[in-house]
Formats: sequence, C-alpha cells, structure tokens
Amino acid sequence: MDYRLLADRYGTPLYIYDFDYMTSRYETLKNAFEGKKSLVAFALKANSNLSVIARFAALGAGADCVSYGEVKRALIAGVPKYKIIFSGVGKRDDEITGALNDDILFINCESEAELDRVEAIAQSLAKPARISVRVNPEIDAKTHPYISTGLKENKFGVDIPTAKRLYIRAKNSPWLEPVGIHFHIGSQLTDLTPIAEAADKVAELARSLIALEIDLKFFDAGGGIGVTYKDETPFTPSQYAKTIAQAINGLDLTIVCEPGRFLTAGGGVFLTRVLYEKRMGDKRFTVVDGAMNDLVRPALYNAYHRVEAIGKSGGESLCDVVGPVCESSDFFAKNISLPSVDRGDLLAVHTAGAYGFTMSSNFNTRRRAAEVAVENGADRLIRERETYDDLLASEVKLLNAAR
Amino acid sequence: MDYRLLADRYGTPLYIYDFDYMTSRYETLKNAFEGKKSLVAFALKANSNLSVIARFAALGAGADCVSYGEVKRALIAGVPKYKIIFSGVGKRDDEITGALNDDILFINCESEAELDRVEAIAQSLAKPARISVRVNPEIDAKTHPYISTGLKENKFGVDIPTAKRLYIRAKNSPWLEPVGIHFHIGSQLTDLTPIAEAADKVAELARSLIALEIDLKFFDAGGGIGVTYKDETPFTPSQYAKTIAQAINGLDLTIVCEPGRFLTAGGGVFLTRVLYEKRMGDKRFTVVDGAMNDLVRPALYNAYHRVEAIGKSGGESLCDVVGPVCESSDFFAKNISLPSVDRGDLLAVHTAGAYGFTMSSNFNTRRRAAEVAVENGADRLIRERETYDDLLASEVKLLNAAR
Repeated sequence: MDYRLLADRYGTPLYIYDFDYMTSRYETLKNAFEGKKSLVAFALKANSNLSVIARFAALGAGADCVSYGEVKRALIAGVPKYKIIFSGVGKRDDEITGALNDDILFINCESEAELDRVEAIAQSLAKPARISVRVNPEIDAKTHPYISTGLKENKFGVDIPTAKRLYIRAKNSPWLEPVGIHFHIGSQLTDLTPIAEAADKVAELARSLIALEIDLKFFDAGGGIGVTYKDETPFTPSQYAKTIAQAINGLDLTIVCEPGRFLTAGGGVFLTRVLYEKRMGDKRFTVVDGAMNDLVRPALYNAYHRVEAIGKSGGESLCDVVGPVCESSDFFAKNISLPSVDRGDLLAVHTAGAYGFTMSSNFNTRRRAAEVAVENGADRLIRERETYDDLLASEVKLLNAAR
Repeated sequence: MDYRLLADRYGTPLYIYDFDYMTSRYETLKNAFEGKKSLVAFALKANSNLSVIARFAALGAGADCVSYGEVKRALIAGVPKYKIIFSGVGKRDDEITGALNDDILFINCESEAELDRVEAIAQSLAKPARISVRVNPEIDAKTHPYISTGLKENKFGVDIPTAKRLYIRAKNSPWLEPVGIHFHIGSQLTDLTPIAEAADKVAELARSLIALEIDLKFFDAGGGIGVTYKDETPFTPSQYAKTIAQAINGLDLTIVCEPGRFLTAGGGVFLTRVLYEKRMGDKRFTVVDGAMNDLVRPALYNAYHRVEAIGKSGGESLCDVVGPVCESSDFFAKNISLPSVDRGDLLAVHTAGAYGFTMSSNFNTRRRAAEVAVENGADRLIRERETYDDLLASEVKLLNAAR
C-alpha cells in the first residue's frame, strides 16, 4: 500500500480500506461453512460505507442491520431484501413499518413489548411479519464489558423461558411468522467455549420449538468473531463453523452468521500526518492531524491499535501519539516505542476498518475524514472529506432566519 | 418548559436549550469580574450551535476556539474578531493561516514546534502574529483523568522554563507579538485550590516576563468551572473571579476566562421518548429512542445525568435507561429509581447542554437529533434533524460512479 501517494492524493486524516483483504476474509468464512446451508450477513455497524457493503453484496453476503438507516444502506448497496436482517433493542414504529414494507428476511425481536409492536404494525399493514427472537443465553463472553451482551445484566434479548413463550405466542398469531432463532453474546470474542455453550443452549431451545411444530428455518449465531489487534489469537473460521454446525446437528436449519469486525477491521488503516513533536520533561508527544473524533476506540474502550511510522526507523523512544482535540482522552497510543519522526511524516493506525469511521463525530468542529477503497492495485474515493459548509449549512439557514 | 409540546412539534430525540438560563449564567459570571478588565470567551467545544454562539455574542462574549472550524463558527455567529482566541495542541498550517488572515485576538501556542510554524506562516503572510503560550503549571486539578490537562503527563501546553524561553524568543522575533499568557488545568473543576495555585504560578511567570519588558495584555485563566450534575457543590463565580484577580494583583492585565460547561450544561435537556419497557429476571430496562450516538458522556466518562420521567409518578423501581444502539455502553443511567412509564412517555436527561450534541455521531446510521432554543417563552428550531439523505448523499454519488 503506497501510503504517501494516497495521503497526497486524498489528504489526511484518511481511512483506507483494502477491499482485496475484505474479500478474502469473506470467502474464508463463507467457505468454512461449506456443505452447510449458510448466510454470512455483514454487520453494517462495523463499517457502513455503501461501497464496502456493495463489495460484500457482490460476493453474496447478506446484511445484519441495527437501524432502519442501515436497512436503507443495505438496499441501496445492492443486498437482496431476502438477505437482510433487522436487529436491535429499540426499533421505532416507522422503522418496523419500513422493514415490513421492504419485505426483508426477518425482524429480530428483543423484547415482548417489541413483539407486540411488530404484530400490531404487521396487522395494520396486512403483512405477516417474519421474525426471530433474540435469546439471551446468560453466558459470560469474557470480553470488554461495553461489548459483552449475553449476560442477564445486559439489555439484549430475552431469557430462555420468555423466548419459548414468545415463540408459542408468535406461532398462534396470524401476523407473526417465527422463522429464526438468534443469539449474540458479545463482540471481539477470542475463546470458542462461551460460543459453543451458547450455541448448545439455543440449539436445545430450537429443538424444543421444532417439536412444538414451530417451523424454524434460520439459526442465527450472531457475530463477535475476534480479530488480532495486538497479540490476541482468535479461533479460526473453520473451528467456529464446526462449533455452530455441531450444536444444530440433525436440524434442518440455515446457519446465519453476522461478522462485522472479522470482515473489515484488519482491512482498514487510519492514516494521519505528524503535525508536531513535543516534550514535557521526559515525556514525548507526537501530535498528529487525526483525533478522537475520527477514531474513538482508544478513548472509549482503551483499545489498542498498532501505530506505524511510515518509512521511518531509528531513534525509537517511548511516546504518546495524540490528536488536536482538547481532551486528555484524545490519543491513539500511549507509551509506545516510535521512531524519531518529523513534521509531515505519516503514521498508519492499523486494524481501523471496524468501528472507526462509523463512530466518528464532528467534535471540536472537525470535518470527518475521507474514505478510500484500494482494490486490485487501484484506489478510489468512497466518501468525500466533509467541508465546513457541510457542517454549518443547516445551522446557518436557521441562524439567518432568526435575525 | 412544556416538554410534551416541544416533543410533538420537533420530534424526539431532541436537544432543548434554555437561552434565558444561558444568558443569566453569562451575566452572573461577567458581573463577577466587575471593576476588572475582563473578557468572557465562550468555549465553543461545549456547545457550538451557531444560534447558541450568537446568543452569547450578543451579550458581549468572546469565543475560545480549538479548531479553525470553531473560528469560522464564531465569526459567522457574530463574535467580533478581536474577541476570538484560537487554542489547541495540533493546529494545521491552513488553520494558522486562516486565523492570521481573520486577524483574531491571539493564537495560543502549545509547543515550541507550533510557535515555529506560527512564526513562519506569519512571516510568509507578512502579518505579525499575536500569540500567547499555554503554560502547563503541573498541578493536579483532581477531576476525571480524561478532562484533566494540567499535569506533565498531559499533552497540553509547555512547562514554565520552556514558556519563559518561548516568550523571550517571541519578543525577539519581528513576526511574533506575545500579548497573552494562558493556562487551563482541566474541566469540571469544583475545588478552587488547584486553580488558585495555578493562577499564582502563572502570575509569577507573568511578572517575570513583564520585568523583561514583554508587553503582556491578557491573563487567560482558561475555563473548567464546574457545574452540578448530581451533588457537586462548585465554587461561585465571585469566588472564582476574586481568586484570579488576586493572583494578578498589581498587574495591568485583562482577565480572560473561557467557560463552556458553566454557561450551557445546566441550560440543556436531552428529550427522549420511551419505546419499550423490558425485564430480564429482576432487572428493569427502559428502552428509549435516544442513544449513545446522541449523548456519549455516560459511555465515555461514566458521567451522571439526572433522568426525569415527565409527568409521571408512582411505581418507582430501579431501572437502567438504555438506547437502541448495539453496545452495552449505550445507556443514559444505570440503577436509578424511575416511576413506572409507558410507551410514548417522555424522559428528560438533564444538564445536557454541554458536550452533548457536539460529541454526537451517526453510529448505527442514526440521524443526529434536532436542536431547539427556548427564549422568552418562545421556541425555535436551531438545527434540523438529519435526514437519511444527509447521511448518504456523498456515498451514494461515489457508489454510483464506481458502477
């Protein structure tokens, strides 16, 4: 990857996505399910750029959406409606209506109150709703508390007895068609054991539902497959696929899996330019033009991202890599060994293809970065850098109206 | 405040700002400096809506900016150029150029490397640059580590010996005009002692610089005045003003103070509607239509915001108030006592006027909230709710270009 050329062509800070890497990740995972019926539904929340979604759609991927905005993204990017799933604990009426009108694969319900709304809206539209229920298997995924979702203290899904009751209710409703069963215990998982336990528990529930003549078609095992940011050694896609397949052994179900980070994290680099070197006593700071508004994971999760000084070596010393935002939480790395760098040098913040741009903001009136795709040796812009006009237009109009 | 009417008129989630409250906060603080030369420069990063800035500008406030985008906001909103200060550890060349061309009050330099750039750009424009140096007094502000900025381990400012050296250098440069001295030890401070210590240290430095015939005009004590989110008892504006005035006793300097949170936090409410009530075992969740993308402070700082169920009482029980975003960090409050609520009820998340909208994002493809001003009993829209088209336009264009 010629970072200098890309920085000159598109400016910094810049998100760069390696589409060849993302393609190969998709194919590795899809192939791991060979011989099984499977749907790999890309979790848009990880990286929702339309061109990224379109890349996966062209490979045959579905879409795991958590808002109606994401459903719209999936459709615009070319994901067929019958491969789109809509999850999330807080769907508004207009979102449910939109998803039913769009005739997506199924709506994943996360509470009894929500199932009520889906039923009522389906009835009002005279369109029965295909649904699944998200089951909270009460298993500790052993990941960061912010991305752990399978415990009773989390807001996600319903417990197993409630799930069973909801499925029976759905079977008896003319407006609900229970076609799937879903669980997702957390993100960035590197240990298969909790996944296996959860899959077994949910498969057991599926068996009991099928025995009640509830016609399940999809076993949706969620996402959460971990990646290597630093020294994590995640399980392999084939170990993962085998684990899920084993859990539903003998059942005629299509396996749905919803990877986000797995497909995109390692294919993304956040490229930023050195503005200033400064020292405070013994402490070295490298100040760059990117900031926490661009990539919030270090501040929010204390996440590690490898930082590489492009084309530099020698003069290594301990350093904090920080941005221009006025918070001490604005850092990319703390106390890392970095070569001596000069103003204008480029730093690559690696493994930034997931939960990078999608979480970015305009804090400190900073314009959000551009996004670029690199594929087959060619690069192209897939999102323009914001302009000040983009940021201010809506407010200027209303300010002038008040004057 | 008639929350129901505002919710019906503008939809939810919604930011509502009480301009009368903000006006009275400004006047209280400004009056505390009575008899002294003072400039109260609103810290735009706390709430940068143009109409909010314009309100303070009309009262006579200046602007404390941390990006050129914020300088643009200040100018558009009507802050006179001679009341605008530009701070921050990572100013790009184009930002410095913009600020010099706009002829703002002064640029606050945070490192020697940055002073070099300001000098070089001033020379290239043949416009001497009015500057201050941010002094890091190495004092523990005893606030949240993410918003503590006055320690040697923080990226902000320079130590006192370096500051002295930079001032002497600036005095001897034809392109630098050192007019101010600046410090800011952290945000949300409730104890005056560290501020007094810092002010004394920096005033002592100012005296020694004045003795060297460096013609300082501004003593910029930064911001950081704390507010009450829960049970904090911050010092009063008059105690604060007295402390700063005492530190510079006998010096002919204009006091600059840069409040953000103090002026706006308590005047803002984030209004959100209940979507679902759900229980997981004994645990109660109230799911609302606002989320961490709208107000990230609870997730990022574990910040407390009082949550009020509008017009409800009775049936109180412990509850987590959570949003639709797919992260366990998406919450507004945990284990608070909340009355029994129904779908459609409104919750007011209080003290949300600072670091609320400015830190918001489109995570999960959620449209950012609208902002409304209430003043003299009248309400008006000051920022439109985003549309899906707003979110997707730039990407759609480039997606279609690639096809």
